[in-house]
Parts: sequence; structure tokens; C-alpha cells
Amino acid sequence: MSCTEKHRDGYIPDLGIRTDLAVEAREEVEKHRQGEIPGLETDTEQDDGITINRVHIKNREASMQLGKPPGKYVTLEAPELKDKNVRVEDRLSVWLSREVEQVAELKDREDVSVMVVGLGNWNVTPDSLGPKVVEDLLVTRHVFELKQEKGMFSNGFRSVSAFSPGVMGLTGIETGEIIQSIAARVKPDLVIAVDALAAHRLERMHTTVQITNTGVIPGSGVQNRRLGITEETIGVPVIAVGVPTVVEASTIVGGAMEAIVRSYQEEKGESAPLGVLGNFNWNEKQELIREVLVPFNEDRLMVTPKEIDDFADNISQVIAGGLNTALHPKMSENGGGKYLQ
Amino acid sequence: MSCTEKHRDGYIPDLGIRTDLAVEAREEVEKHRQGEIPGLETDTEQDDGITINRVHIKNREASMQLGKPPGKYVTLEAPELKDKNVRVEDRLSVWLSREVEQVAELKDREDVSVMVVGLGNWNVTPDSLGPKVVEDLLVTRHVFELKQEKGMFSNGFRSVSAFSPGVMGLTGIETGEIIQSIAARVKPDLVIAVDALAAHRLERMHTTVQITNTGVIPGSGVQNRRLGITEETIGVPVIAVGVPTVVEASTIVGGAMEAIVRSYQEEKGESAPLGVLGNFNWNEKQELIREVLVPFNEDRLMVTPKEIDDFADNISQVIAGGLNTALHPKMSENGGGKYLQ
Amino acid sequence: MSCTEKHRDGYIPDLGIRTDLAVEAREEVEKHRQGEIPGLETDTEQDDGITINRVHIKNREASMQLGKPPGKYVTLEAPELKDKNVRVEDRLSVWLSREVEQVAELKDREDVSVMVVGLGNWNVTPDSLGPKVVEDLLVTRHVFELKQEKGMFSNGFRSVSAFSPGVMGLTGIETGEIIQSIAARVKPDLVIAVDALAAHRLERMHTTVQITNTGVIPGSGVQNRRLGITEETIGVPVIAVGVPTVVEASTIVGGAMEAIVRSYQEEKGESAPLGVLGNFNWNEKQELIREVLVPFNEDRLMVTPKEIDDFADNISQVIAGGLNTALHPKMSENGGGKYLQ
Amino acid sequence: MSCTEKHRDGYIPDLGIRTDLAVEAREEVEKHRQGEIPGLETDTEQDDGITINRVHIKNREASMQLGKPPGKYVTLEAPELKDKNVRVEDRLSVWLSREVEQVAELKDREDVSVMVVGLGNWNVTPDSLGPKVVEDLLVTRHVFELKQEKGMFSNGFRSVSAFSPGVMGLTGIETGEIIQSIAARVKPDLVIAVDALAAHRLERMHTTVQITNTGVIPGSGVQNRRLGITEETIGVPVIAVGVPTVVEASTIVGGAMEAIVRSYQEEKGESAPLGVLGNFNWNEKQELIREVLVPFNEDRLMVTPKEIDDFADNISQVIAGGLNTALHPKMSENGGGKYLQ
Repeated sequence: MSCTEKHRDGYIPDLGIRTDLAVEAREEVEKHRQGEIPGLETDTEQDDGITINRVHIKNREASMQLGKPPGKYVTLEAPELKDKNVRVEDRLSVWLSREVEQVAELKDREDVSVMVVGLGNWNVTPDSLGPKVVEDLLVTRHVFELKQEKGMFSNGFRSVSAFSPGVMGLTGIETGEIIQSIAARVKPDLVIAVDALAAHRLERMHTTVQITNTGVIPGSGVQNRRLGITEETIGVPVIAVGVPTVVEASTIVGGAMEAIVRSYQEEKGESAPLGVLGNFNWNEKQELIREVLVPFNEDRLMVTPKEIDDFADNISQVIAGGLNTALHPKMSENGGGKYLQ
Repeated sequence: MSCTEKHRDGYIPDLGIRTDLAVEAREEVEKHRQGEIPGLETDTEQDDGITINRVHIKNREASMQLGKPPGKYVTLEAPELKDKNVRVEDRLSVWLSREVEQVAELKDREDVSVMVVGLGNWNVTPDSLGPKVVEDLLVTRHVFELKQEKGMFSNGFRSVSAFSPGVMGLTGIETGEIIQSIAARVKPDLVIAVDALAAHRLERMHTTVQITNTGVIPGSGVQNRRLGITEETIGVPVIAVGVPTVVEASTIVGGAMEAIVRSYQEEKGESAPLGVLGNFNWNEKQELIREVLVPFNEDRLMVTPKEIDDFADNISQVIAGGLNTALHPKMSENGGGKYLQ
Repeated sequence: MSCTEKHRDGYIPDLGIRTDLAVEAREEVEKHRQGEIPGLETDTEQDDGITINRVHIKNREASMQLGKPPGKYVTLEAPELKDKNVRVEDRLSVWLSREVEQVAELKDREDVSVMVVGLGNWNVTPDSLGPKVVEDLLVTRHVFELKQEKGMFSNGFRSVSAFSPGVMGLTGIETGEIIQSIAARVKPDLVIAVDALAAHRLERMHTTVQITNTGVIPGSGVQNRRLGITEETIGVPVIAVGVPTVVEASTIVGGAMEAIVRSYQEEKGESAPLGVLGNFNWNEKQELIREVLVPFNEDRLMVTPKEIDDFADNISQVIAGGLNTALHPKMSENGGGKYLQ
Repeated sequence: MSCTEKHRDGYIPDLGIRTDLAVEAREEVEKHRQGEIPGLETDTEQDDGITINRVHIKNREASMQLGKPPGKYVTLEAPELKDKNVRVEDRLSVWLSREVEQVAELKDREDVSVMVVGLGNWNVTPDSLGPKVVEDLLVTRHVFELKQEKGMFSNGFRSVSAFSPGVMGLTGIETGEIIQSIAARVKPDLVIAVDALAAHRLERMHTTVQITNTGVIPGSGVQNRRLGITEETIGVPVIAVGVPTVVEASTIVGGAMEAIVRSYQEEKGESAPLGVLGNFNWNEKQELIREVLVPFNEDRLMVTPKEIDDFADNISQVIAGGLNTALHPKMSENGGGKYLQ
């Protein structure tokens, strides 16, 4: 199995766990092994209700272990987002701006032109994060191109373009192909792809943002897209900004199975003979999961909160605000949200 | 526990199973008992890819068993809807029209005025069925009221009004209160409530329509609304037309737990000592389910297919077409869909 | 012709001019008469790019002259809104909050419960202001009712409900009837109706907000609704907040006719015989306007900028922010926009 | 002035009239000249409430006169569309399908792959025709590419892709550039561009469809886009399908001016001295129009009916149905609308 294949669909290879978050991959892997993972550098910071977690996958081994390509992954976790805590939203927006600037190496490079891509299906609420964020960005490239109104944006603004390519079922065209061809024309110095992700743990839905310089790998995101959107395929660095908005149904089903085994063990004592449950291997478990989810393929069902609309609106505004400030330094004076269209 | 309380939230009382479909309640109850349920009349028909199932709950006992109020429940099941089979869509629309006419006793009563209510949250794809259907109905009440253009609808049309009351999180007002007050003013002879439902079985999502003369009971629907929309609360007969678009996450989790027990039994033989699994009672199971779904309340998470947009568009057009023909006999000449706005 | 009839459709009776803005009615009337209008009190203030104009129609005579019911009308004009001037947007939001508080007499009355109504058709961009604003309000009534989460909003929040009743073509029901019946149920102390208006002058589109305690009179707004939404019809005070988003095509056509006459006079001298143009009376002009606009009724066509989406988004956020702060004093600490859903 | 420049912005050069419809250009030009226009071939047919008008601009001279590039223009006019006449809608859909097949030379060429482009701004109701139509098309390219489900579309279906590129104000990228780059990748044999147009006469709004093999020329459409979408720029034949949904405000203003002159002449007799009015030349008129429309540029205001949502929905469904049948011959068996997503 090639490395690329391993990375397909966000699975942690040895555990059969699907998550788009590096921080979760690390958590799960560490549960099952002793000692540190070589080639993995991590760092955690706390600020006012937000946990900033930085994972650096530095070599092939760590990459294989975690099922994610080598690169930097920053996670911002803000559990209080669920309570519509305005102060936390503001802080998160500031942190996002700062970390995007860092990961994308934007500092003091005002001439960098950026193309933002809103991935996902605008007709499906949990998959609409990307298109929602794109709607609220301050787009300026046409002004820079036409020059005529350039005065409007003299200093402190970058040339930014943005679009939402839709999904293959709507267009008949691979999302990655659309982005590749437009990037070849627009020739940005940097692409930022915003996407709805799948988490492993329910509490991370809508409370977590991941920023990575690895781009969007095949099989990740709510729609499990086929073609990667990475520096390799697009030709310029690709920063991915994602928020988990769903957990795959198969994750929940797997969790339920583990819970019942745990409950059995708790009663009987850890050393009790588990019978079928103890011998339960990865393949059998996958098969059982598939059975429970028939007639759907096990990766075609998502679990998401009923109040998804509220959560999605909040977090997409936080991200749009953070990106606006990261991309247009001038906007941090007013707060990025103020320029929302 | 009063009968009404038992009916709260669509649970089958003795099984702890949540479904808004009478046909599923019956299926599940029959699995666990021997002999017929007294006071339950059922009838099944097949037509060209569609199964028509009629359940008549005739007394209190059957009502208690199935966890649904007494009344008529017609289910139309069309598994081929998933393949975008146009012929099946057309047939389903015709069957829907026919059964609505029957259940609502509309035949030869052209002077019946109807108010259609699209329940649910238009911002959440799986909950948007009601508002989507309302958008595609031929609304005529204002023409009848103003009379000036009445000529347009001389024969074969009924006075129809329609609106979508939103959900409490959007308006701050109980949906039921909004409907009650508007009904008191508009004074329709009949209310039809269109709603997205929760099923017990995944294969019923987007392939099944339920028509009932019991209205919408508290706790049913995707949003688990609090106040019923029934003849009792509104003052005129209420027909509910619903399509399951989600399965509750707790249902899937429960299913996973059962699957693992079944798998254990299959290996060990049915009579093998199950230990914790065998003694596993309803309450323990509920508690374990709640644990798996933390930090969400067990009824706040839904499972739904990723292609929800496609399915939702198809079935809402089928329903709008069927309702248009049922409400405006003239429209059956052209096919109800043709008048879609 | 009764006074009410005179008020129908926002016309200034003697001039045949259609405007929903009192400030324009006054401007136009003053152009054609000498001396002050008795019973009219006016007051103008400037602040940082915003002109605050207060018109108080105190008696029947002034009401007849201006074609508007007696009451207070505050206009906030901010021409720089067109340039997306963030500072002006912020100031306007603050002024709006302050003037709504004043006109609605909300000061120090935290127990006043408010129902906000978003008038207009969400499917027609220039008529979608009301529904757009409603989407961005902080709705709290259900929390107050249920009490369970009341702690969330202990001090500094009012009980606010909000909905968009749609338009008659969509529902078959008069908008006013829907509002009356829901108000009778919800029993708010105050209704605020947000609406898209028609202006007389193009430069006022999307740069002007009018706040009035007269409610919404019949025939005003983009859709020229039939039934008033006033203290008389609803039973509690009604504040209307409106933004002109269109000019009626008949206004433009009339303006073009006047321009050509003026141009004729400029060449020939004011005293030159105008022939048909000089004798041109109100009725002839109306007839000619109707002719130019065939096959549409002269009040069924609107003129609006092609960039309507941008303007509409901006101003609706300004208004939602201002209303949030006026209704929830606590929110002024963070800026009302921050609680936008 | 080069020919291309002449074509800019849909103006008929000698008359200062803006229309995207060849049939109107011809009408207006013929009013002002005697004898036929050399190089212009026309043909009219009537069918059941629909007028089919074919204009063939065969040489440079006719092109200069009409302000449209050489090519075929078919107009389908159906005034009864306004009354929601279902029979006329059906007929129009059939005619559209037939004429698209003809103009695009699709007959017996099932292997032609087609890319449909929905031009315009989805946030502005009168400009949303293209995106609306794209939403209702049967998209198949991905199925053909992946082959796996090809069986679904064995015979009678073509490979169709479709997307809506947005407008420059939303993306920062010229619409034409987006289309060029995606076309270079997707390599369709034919592009069909669907667009909202500007008419000269009010009665043509929403009752007329134009099909042309000249593509979309710069300056046409509601948004007056800068870059053409033509065989020259895209590299494969481009068919444009358009519906006028607006009249420019400057057209209405010009019409009002002409009406008043006509009225003057009628009273005084045609030979009466018109003074300024008679000598009124093109430039003066343009200047006066600009004055009336201040502070907007004369091409930034549109006139459109208040019921635009109803009209837009109807006609976009008619066009989607017609295109579906033209592109997928198999679908004519069921009626193209039936496959609407």
C-alpha cells in the first residue's frame, strides 16, 4: 500500500478510525502505543477559553502512523462556542488570523495574492461551511486588476479572489479540476481552501478549527473528495482551514460497539474472557458496522446536531472575520467582521 | 403516565424505540409479541414498485402498544426513488394524491378550503421538507378572497393558503401557537401539515411517505416539537404528510449494540450465557447510548445521508405535485407538477 | 375622499408623487408652496457623515399636505454607505439604536416585550430587507417563556420574538392578517415592522433609514400592501423601520418628462410659451406615464441598482445591529452585530 | 470605431438603443429606414400562442446596422407566459428544445459533450436566471467519466457538465476567464451559456427567449460583462440562451422623453416647430438621461416587475426542461421537467 493510498480518506491506518483532525489522530494513536512517536513535534497553549494545539508531522514514519501527510497542523479548540460566547468568538477570530498568517508565512509580504476556495455543497447545511465563508470575504482582485479603483485599497490590502466550485454531483466536474484550471489562470501566490471536516469525537463538531499547510488530501472533508488540493496538484502552497461539522455514522457505530465491550469488561473485570468480543478484530468490526448501516455505504452517512444552522452560521462568521484580517492587515483596525459583505 | 405523555416524542413505550412511522412501530412491536394486536387493522397493496400500507389504530390498547394516537396511517414506500426513477416518482405522486383525498375525505367536496403548513427549519437541509413543499404549492386563497380574478380559477380549484411558521429557535414563538392563531383567522376547513420525520430504519429515509389523520403529535418530527398540531389544538381536522429524512443517532447506536449482542450469540449459540449483555435492560441501554453521544443530548443528533440535497429535492417535488392534484382536481389533467411556481 | 384614502399608496395628494419617506414629502411640498406648513415641526442635525432629520406631523392639515399620517418620522441619511465606509456604518447603527429607543420610548423600560416583523418577499432582492434583518436578530422570547435557560439572559435583555410573514402571493393570506393574529397570541407590548420602501429620489436608495411611530400604512412599501400595520389594527404601538431600496418606474418616467420640459425652458427662457408642455396637467402626465409603462400597471415596476445585493446586505446588517442594541441594552457593550446569528 | 467596439454593450449604434435581442434591434432599425437591410434574412412562424422569429445576420453591413455580430438569432415570444398558462409553457419548452437542437446542430450527434454555464448573480433576482437553470439540469459528465454507473445512461443521454461562475464582484475574477479555464480543462464540444438579458420593450420581459450561435458578446446581459463568451474566446461553438428580465432605466427614461415629444407633436401637428425638442440630438438626449439618473451611472439601474420571483421561477423551469430534452434525447419521452433535480 503506497503512502498516498494510506492517506486516502482520512483513516488512521492501524486503527480504522476516520478523522480529518491531526490532533485526534495523535490522541487515538497515543492511546494505543507506549512512548513518543518519532518525528512528531507537538505544542499546546491555553488562552482565555481557547486551546491552541500545534502538531508538526516531520517525517514519513509519523505520517504513516497518523494517516496524515507531513506538515504543520494547528488546532484551535473553543468549547464555549456552543454557548454563543461572544468574547470567545472574538478571541478565536484573532487566533485564527494569527495562525493563518504564521502557517501561510504572510507576515510582511503584502504583495502575496491569495485565492480562497470554499469547498463543499451549499445545499447541504453541514457541508456548506466553505461556500458560507467565501460569501463573507472581502474580495479585491478585480479592483487590483482594473486598477481604476485601486485608490480604495492603497495600503494594507492584498489581492484576494474567492469562489465556491460546488461538488461533482452538481457540476459533473471534479472539484479539484475546477480549482486547478482557475488557479492556472488567476496565478495566485497562495491558495486557501476552506472546508467542512469529519471529526472522530462529537464534542469537536463546530468548536474546533484546523489550519494546515498540507492542503486538502483526497478522501477528506464531508464529501470525501477524490482529488487532492495540494501544492503538488495546484502548483502553489495550499493552506487548508477546516471545521468539523459532522462525525461519520460509522464512527458512532464503532463507538457504540466499544462502549458495550467496555461495559462488559467493567462488570466482569478486565481479565474476564470476552469471547467473541475480545477476539473482535478490525475486519469483523468493519463488517458489522457496514451491516448496521445498510443500505448505505458506511461512508455515506453523517451524524450532525439538529441545531446545525446556528452553529454553522456562527463559526463561518468567525472564520470569515479571521481570514479577512489575516489577508487584509488594514482590516484588523476595525475588526474583520465589519467588512463582511 | 397518561396516554398523552406516552405519546410524547414518538417512542414505542415498551421498546424504547423512536420512530414517527406507524408502519415501523407495528413492525417492531410484532417482532416482540405473539399473535395480533387487538384494535389494529392493517392492509397492504403493491403497485408498480410502490408498497401501500394502511394501518388503522382503532382503540386505546393498540394506541398504547404502538405509541401512536388512534387514527389512520397510510405509508407509501418506493425504494426505487433513490435511483431517481422518474416513472416511480410519477406513480408515487399519483398515489399520494389519491390517499390524501381519501384520508382527508376531499372527494366531491370542492368547497373545502385548505391551509397547508410547512413545518421545519429551512436552514437545515434534512428539516427543510415542509418549507420546500410549501414553496411549490399553487396558492389560491387570496384570489378567492379578492374575487377579482376568480375567473382564473372557476372550476376544479379549491381555496388554498400555505405558509411555513419556522421553528422556535428562529422566531421565539412555539410553532403550534403560530399555526393556531393563523388558523383562527383564516378559518380553513382542513389543515395539512407537511413535516420531515425520524425513521427507525435507514432504508426508509427519503423513500417513504406517511399520511395520517391524527395530525402532528408532540415530540415528533426532526425538531421534536412540543405542541401538537391536531384537530384538538387547531379546531379543524389536521392531515399530516411526512417523509423520514433522518434517523436519530440514538437509534443507530442502539442498533449497533444489538448487532454486537447478536453477533456474540451467533458464535456462542443462542442459549450461551450472555453475562452483562443478556441482562442488559432498557434503562442500562439508554444510559450507555447517552454516554456514547455525550456531549449532546441523545435526541439532538441526527443521522442523514451526505446526498441529502438530491433526495430532499426529489421527494419534495413529488409531494408538492401530489398535493396540488389532490387540492385542485383540475390540475390532475396536466399533472400537478406543471403548476409548480 | 377620506383621509385614509388619501394616505393610500404613499402619494403626496396634490403632486402625484409617490414616496414612503416623510422627509421627501416635505421637500417636494415645500418646493411648490411658500411659507411654512402649519402643524409641521422639523429639526436637522449632522454627525460625522450622517444627517438626522426629524419631522413631526402634528395635525390633520400637515398630514393632508404631506400624504402621511400624523406622527414622528426620523430619517438618517448616510450617503457614504455606498462606498462601504465602515466607520459610517458603525455610526449609523448607533444612531439607529438611539432613535428607535427614543421613538419607541424604550428607555428604562426593560420589561417591554417586542415582536419584530420582517415585511417583504425574500425571493425578490429589493424587497428582502425585512426578512434579512429578522434573520440577524437575537430572538429571546422562547427563553423567557420556558424560563429554564433564563439565566443566560438575566439582565440587559428584553423578550424579543421575530418572524417574516411573507407576501400574499406566496401565502394566500394578507400580511396584515397574519401579523394581527400572531400579535393577538404573543401579546407583545410593542411591534417593530421592518420594510423595504420606495423613495422619490434615486440617491436615497440604500443610504437612508426612516423610523416612525405611525406604523406601516396601506399602500406603502415595495409591494404596496393593502392592510395597514398600525396601532389601530394591531392593538399595540407599531414602530416602522424602513429603507428605500427602489424608486417606482413611474417616478423615473415623471422625472424624465420634467427634465425635458426644464431643458426646453432653459433654452427658450422661462417665460417662453410651453404649448402642450406648459399646460401639461397632473392627469395628462399620469396618463402619459401609464402609456410608457404598458403593459404593466404603473405601480408594478421598480427601478433598482444592479448591485442591489451588496447594498442590501450592508444596510440590513446595520439595521439588525442597531435593533439588537436598542432591544437588548446589554448588547451595546459588545456591539450589536456581534450577536448576529 | 472598430466593429468589436460597436458591438460593445448591446447598443444599436445609430439609435443609441440598448437591447440584447436581435429581434428588437431589427424592429427599431426598420422603424427608421426605408427598404430592407441587405444581409439580413428573417422568417416568422406562429404556433399556438408562440411567435418564432428567426433573424440571420449574414454580413458585416447588417451586423453594423443592428449592433449585433453576424449569426443566427431565434426568438420565441409567448405573451401568455405572464398568465401562467401551463399549455403555453409546455409548448415553449418543446420549441426551445427544437430550436436549440437546430442552432447547435445537435441532431444525430449523441456523442457531443456539452458544458452549460449559468451566467449572472444568484443574489439578485432579475440576474439569477442562469444559476437557476443550471440547478435544474441533469448533469451526467461525472458518470460518463467514472464509467462505473454508465449503465444508468446507456443510450439517449449526452455527457453534460454545468456550473455558475458568479460575477466579478463576488469572485474578483472575470466571468469569462473562469469559463475559459474550465472549458480548457473539461474540453466540451459545445458550450451553452444561459443568461438574463436586457430588453428594449417592457412587454418582452419574461415572455421571450433568444437562442443564438454568436455566444455572449461583451457588454450584454444584466451585468454588462466585459469579456465575451464566444467561439473566439472559448475555442468551441457557444450557443447563448437568454431571457430578458430587465429593461435598463435609461431605456425607460428615453421612452418617456420620446412620449412627451410625440404628445407635443400630436397636439400641434407633426410639422409644428419643435424647438429644442425637434433639434434634440442623440448626445443631448443621452446627457439628459444621465442627469435624470444621477447619482447612478446610466447603465447601473434596471427596471423590473415587482413579481419578478414568480416570472423568474416559471421561465427558468421552462428553459431547464427544454435544455434537458435537447441535450438528452431520451428525456423527451418523459418530458424534460421530470428529471429536474
